[in-house]
Amino acid sequence: MIFDVMTLFPEMVENYFQYSILKRASDGGIITVNTINPRDYTENKHKKVDDMPYGGGAGMVLMPQPYVDAYESIPKLENTLTIMLSPQGEPLTDKVVNELGQYEQIIMLCGHYEGFDERIREIIKPREISIGDFVLTGGELPALCLIDAVSRKIEGTLGKIESADEDSFSNGLIEYPHYTRPREYRGYKVPEVLLNGNHKEINEFRLQKSIERTKARRPDLYEKYLQSHNKP
Amino acid sequence: MIFDVMTLFPEMVENYFQYSILKRASDGGIITVNTINPRDYTENKHKKVDDMPYGGGAGMVLMPQPYVDAYESIPKLENTLTIMLSPQGEPLTDKVVNELGQYEQIIMLCGHYEGFDERIREIIKPREISIGDFVLTGGELPALCLIDAVSRKIEGTLGKIESADEDSFSNGLIEYPHYTRPREYRGYKVPEVLLNGNHKEINEFRLQKSIERTKARRPDLYEKYLQSHNKP
Repeated sequence: MIFDVMTLFPEMVENYFQYSILKRASDGGIITVNTINPRDYTENKHKKVDDMPYGGGAGMVLMPQPYVDAYESIPKLENTLTIMLSPQGEPLTDKVVNELGQYEQIIMLCGHYEGFDERIREIIKPREISIGDFVLTGGELPALCLIDAVSRKIEGTLGKIESADEDSFSNGLIEYPHYTRPREYRGYKVPEVLLNGNHKEINEFRLQKSIERTKARRPDLYEKYLQSHNKP
Repeated sequence: MIFDVMTLFPEMVENYFQYSILKRASDGGIITVNTINPRDYTENKHKKVDDMPYGGGAGMVLMPQPYVDAYESIPKLENTLTIMLSPQGEPLTDKVVNELGQYEQIIMLCGHYEGFDERIREIIKPREISIGDFVLTGGELPALCLIDAVSRKIEGTLGKIESADEDSFSNGLIEYPHYTRPREYRGYKVPEVLLNGNHKEINEFRLQKSIERTKARRPDLYEKYLQSHNKP
């Protein structure tokens, strides 16, 4: 899967793939992450990519020409999606992540400073995605979140020992508690049920804990879970 | 403001502060970002920090000892908050960001692989925060999102020319469209109202666009906006 990231700060993006699981996926050719810097495409003689907003107000606005030209320079596969990372977009969820995983190529526009000139939206017509109802200095972290979340579900990214099947949200619930060695730490013990090897009991314990935790922490998800299970 | 990030991949976090606005905030002493690697605190002779889950299942679970000892080694100020980044936490929102900005120090635990041994939660009792209903390979990106969102609201991080006052969510709405030069690009023109210098009209135009956009894209936020303005 190819991810093309349009950003004024390519190193911010590239660095993330030097470590851990996504380094392995990148080294193994499971994912390819390219960066495209709109500054390399500006026709402005001072290499400017932003300017003051018409109508006044704080912040610098990203100019259309460098972004549109940079976008048009990217080779596009048949099964391609273009995304703008923006707090104005639809919220990223596990369901959206699954949908994005169906594409061969995802092109991403990362804003910075005050945001994009509206005509970049009008011309490129990207799908707009937000990672949450908060504001960041740029779209680079959201782009990395999107690449990470999509990539880890591609077969081969997580090793045999890892898995995305029992993640939070995969069954509409948040995850059950995990325990590893030692059996007792500072007086806190691993629950007995996890030690007895009875897999039916273990599965029941874990489902029960998932349900309890979802009910306590995320009543919104719990409601949906009940509805989907036809429980009153 | 001090951010202490507990992570197995310190460079992943440190790199982000080498660029742009947060480099300036970091160089200027407005924020200090420290990293603490639990691997440096493990008592395991092979430097292991994770082990197989009790009860079976995929993934490696982070052991309590390295995390609890690393946590206890961090010097704590009076006005400190400890956060665990986890998809099980409360969602990060602009409101939570404002609240977090009141602390002098934020300590963050970043998970990786399958997650934390439950006893880390029981002993450290962190506030758990999630950046969204999707799963990542680790808590490093969520920690960076949190630091970025909180830092950019601290006075001095954004320059005079920038501003957080008119951000999406600051008034319960998503942001109005921005325009900069040129006045016409590929046939797309800047709206006339932004060029006439009438600030009353400009403000009305922007508020109207914010409302329209919020209604179309985020009916959930629009409902809340109507309620808070007592409109039927």
